[in-house]
Order: sequence, then structure tokens, then C-alpha cells
Amino acid sequence: MRALITNDDGISSPGLAALVRAFEAVAETYVVAPEHERSATGHAITLHKPLRAHTAVIPGSTVRAWATNGTPADCVALGMLDLLEGQRPDVVLSGINVGPNIGRDLTYSGTVSGAMEGAIFGVPSIAVSIGAFRNPVFTVAAEFAVHLAKAIFERGLPEDTLLNVNVPNLSKEEIGGVTITRQGMKRYVSRLEKRTDPRGRTYYWLTGEPTPLPDEEGTDSWALARGRISVTPIGLDLTDGVLRRTVEAWDLRFPG
Amino acid sequence: MRALITNDDGISSPGLAALVRAFEAVAETYVVAPEHERSATGHAITLHKPLRAHTAVIPGSTVRAWATNGTPADCVALGMLDLLEGQRPDVVLSGINVGPNIGRDLTYSGTVSGAMEGAIFGVPSIAVSIGAFRNPVFTVAAEFAVHLAKAIFERGLPEDTLLNVNVPNLSKEEIGGVTITRQGMKRYVSRLEKRTDPRGRTYYWLTGEPTPLPDEEGTDSWALARGRISVTPIGLDLTDGVLRRTVEAWDLRFPG
Repeated sequence: MRALITNDDGISSPGLAALVRAFEAVAETYVVAPEHERSATGHAITLHKPLRAHTAVIPGSTVRAWATNGTPADCVALGMLDLLEGQRPDVVLSGINVGPNIGRDLTYSGTVSGAMEGAIFGVPSIAVSIGAFRNPVFTVAAEFAVHLAKAIFERGLPEDTLLNVNVPNLSKEEIGGVTITRQGMKRYVSRLEKRTDPRGRTYYWLTGEPTPLPDEEGTDSWALARGRISVTPIGLDLTDGVLRRTVEAWDLRFPG
Repeated sequence: MRALITNDDGISSPGLAALVRAFEAVAETYVVAPEHERSATGHAITLHKPLRAHTAVIPGSTVRAWATNGTPADCVALGMLDLLEGQRPDVVLSGINVGPNIGRDLTYSGTVSGAMEGAIFGVPSIAVSIGAFRNPVFTVAAEFAVHLAKAIFERGLPEDTLLNVNVPNLSKEEIGGVTITRQGMKRYVSRLEKRTDPRGRTYYWLTGEPTPLPDEEGTDSWALARGRISVTPIGLDLTDGVLRRTVEAWDLRFPG
């Protein structure tokens, strides 16, 4: 098995190092990751400035690794198109992200976008996040990522799909199992903190917090809150089939 | 009708100005747009640096407008949470983008991400693009956007959905009508141009071109290639229901 690993917390993230060390034991492993944190970067790619890559060292590992000035999606593209010298990976992994990527996080998530880019290159891809921001312990999530990568190495994934994994921040004994989930639609309440700088000019910090709504059964957030690993199958086709039929009935004649 | 308009080509884009002038005639219109081009920015939001907004003027218009150092999604959040002073828009528009946003462009698209953010705020939202990079004429697309905004002002849109519109770069007489489409899955062939800078160091330009595959009937690219306006209903739930059932059958026991 050959693995290409990226993330959005940056090349020096301990979550990345934990994932790399777990894969190094079972696969020919390469790392291409952003040199700085690129959280909430969405599925951004860099078209308007040059990209650069330089070799890097992942602590506790001897894999070949590069840090780039690009986004997670750029990193996957740089790996696929140049740095891996044409050696096609069997799986692309993005993570381990510190903090969950569930519900409406998904379209914002740099972690998920790294796996999206892998899927667009036709490689089975997995995004991995841990369900806590504080004191994350990555070993269980890394071990599960290897388990899941082996499963998709055997079985494959359909075109234009990927898996989004969230692992509770628990010991292996405390994990309540695995649930194949759907994306929750938990709302975030976006907030803006308005401040004044020393020169008297206004600036803003964008922030947000989840609403206190109950988790719907079967969603990613529901599984995570119950100490279970959530695996959400994701598709790149964003068409809403139900709304399509609704809008067809509107008779949007134009020109009138 | 009250409209909030953003884009990803930046505040000085003629596509934005054309859309603003068309809406100014029928709606109370506000503009919050990036000060610079933010194409291919995905659904990025800015969490790690302060955001700033300053007033701007849209040529040929008297609407209230602000330019920001944020992404299209940041612009929508700044408008909703502060700049519009609590006046809730009935519709969020993003565009008019120069160049189509179809198929796999969607997750990369800054234009679409502006409308995604509107949908996340619970406002019916429309992304509008014109199907040509050269010599775009925006009047037909702007007129159709008003037509469609009126329709959703009357009928509403379901939660967590938006409409992605692509208009051929044709005169009104040449437009072949409107098709309610699905997102195409046309592949881009990503390419990397590897160059050497004057100091002898490698850098890359990321680029891509559509594959010469035929368009599938009923997709956005199919409609556009036939001189028709494409309206694709988009949902924010990325779950792949078919793959979900497949993966459930895998029996991913963990811990083993």
C-alpha cells in the first residue's frame, strides 16, 4: 500500500506526525503538507501565485516529506503531479485534524478539502479528525485510519466519493464502536467581535459556536457525542435532486 | 425586496457592477465584496486574522457598498452580522463571475461559496456566472438573475439549498431558454508547470484544462454548450446515500 498524507494544521502538527508514524509501519508513505496552518481554507487552490515545496522532517519518522506554501488541495496536487515522481498512491489521507469536522464544517474544512482533492485525482481518500480541541490523543484515530485504509485498499471507493472520519478523543477501551453516519446539519451561530485598533479604526474577528440543538440520530455529531467513531461517506456531486424537481415545476421561462 | 450582493472577482469587477445596477432598479441593494480577486478560494472563511471593511463606490450605481480583506463567505458574514445593521436580505447573490462555475469547479468556486454562506445564514441564495472568459456581456445574466430572484422571493428555497446559475455569453435573442440541470462531473486534467526562478530554485504554477469528454445530457455543461441558461439546485448535505449503504455492509469492527 502506498499512502499520500496531507493536513490543514500544517507540517509541524502532532496530529500529522501520529498519522504518518501509523502508516509508515504498513505502507510506503509520503507527506506533502502546508508549511503553516490552513484551517477553514475550504477547497481552495492556488492559481494566482507560484507554489513552492521544500523537504521536511516528520518527528519520529523517516518518510519523505515536503512542506509547501499551498493549501491542502495544492499539496495533494503537488504530490500527485510532481513530488511523488509518478508513483500513484493507493490512498490519500488528510489529518489528523485537531477538532471535529462535522455537519456544516464540511464545506469550510481544509482537512476535508485535502481528501476531496485526492478523490478528484481518482484516489480513494479519507479525512480524519479528532473530536476535541484540547488534549487530543491521536493513537486511536491513527490506528483506525490504518484499519479503514486497508478496507478501502481491498474494496476501493466509487468515483467522486471520499470518507470523512471523526474519532472521539477517548482511549481504545472507551470507544463505543463505529457508525456509518450522514452529515449532520447542526447550525453554527456565526458571531462577529467588533473592535477598535490603536489608530481608532474598526476591525472584526469572525467566530462561531454550535447551536444547542439536539443531535439527530444517525448523524456524525450524534455518533461522536456517544463515544462512537463516525464514518460519513461524502460525494462530490452537490446537486439537490428534490429541489431540482421543485424548480423544474416553476416554469422559469426566459426570455419571457 | 432587499438584496445582498458579493462576488469573488473583487469589488472592482464589471460583472459585480452589472449585477448591482440590475438589482438597484428593483430592490434595496447592498454590496459587500472582496477588495481583491479571490477566485478558487473554496468555501474559506477567515478565522486567524482580523477582518476589515471600508466603504466603496460601484460605478454607475448609488448603492451602499463595502470592500473587505475577506473571502466571499466572510463578506456575507460581515454584511449579515454588522454592515447591514440588522436589515435581513431576502436574497443573497454572488457574481457575476467571469467564466463558468460548472461540474467539479463547484467545490473550488469562490462565487458558489458566497451563495453557500448566504444559505447557511438561512437566506435564499444564488450564484451567477457567465460561460465565457473573454468579452463577457453581463446584461442578460444580470436580467436573468433578477428574474430568478423574484421567483425565489415569491416561492422561497428549502433550508440548506442554493441555486447555481450559468448563463451563456450570448445576446438575449440567442439564448435557447432555461434548463434545470444537475452538476456535471466533467474532469479537469490538473497540470503543473515547473519552472526555475532567477536564483535557481524550483517553483510551480498550478493549472488545469477540461477533458475533451462529451457532456452528459441534463448537466450544467451540457446546457451551457447548447446556448441554454443552466440552473443547478445545490444542497449543503454532502452525504452520499448509496455509498453509505455500501460501507455499512463492510462491517468495520473497531476495536477488533
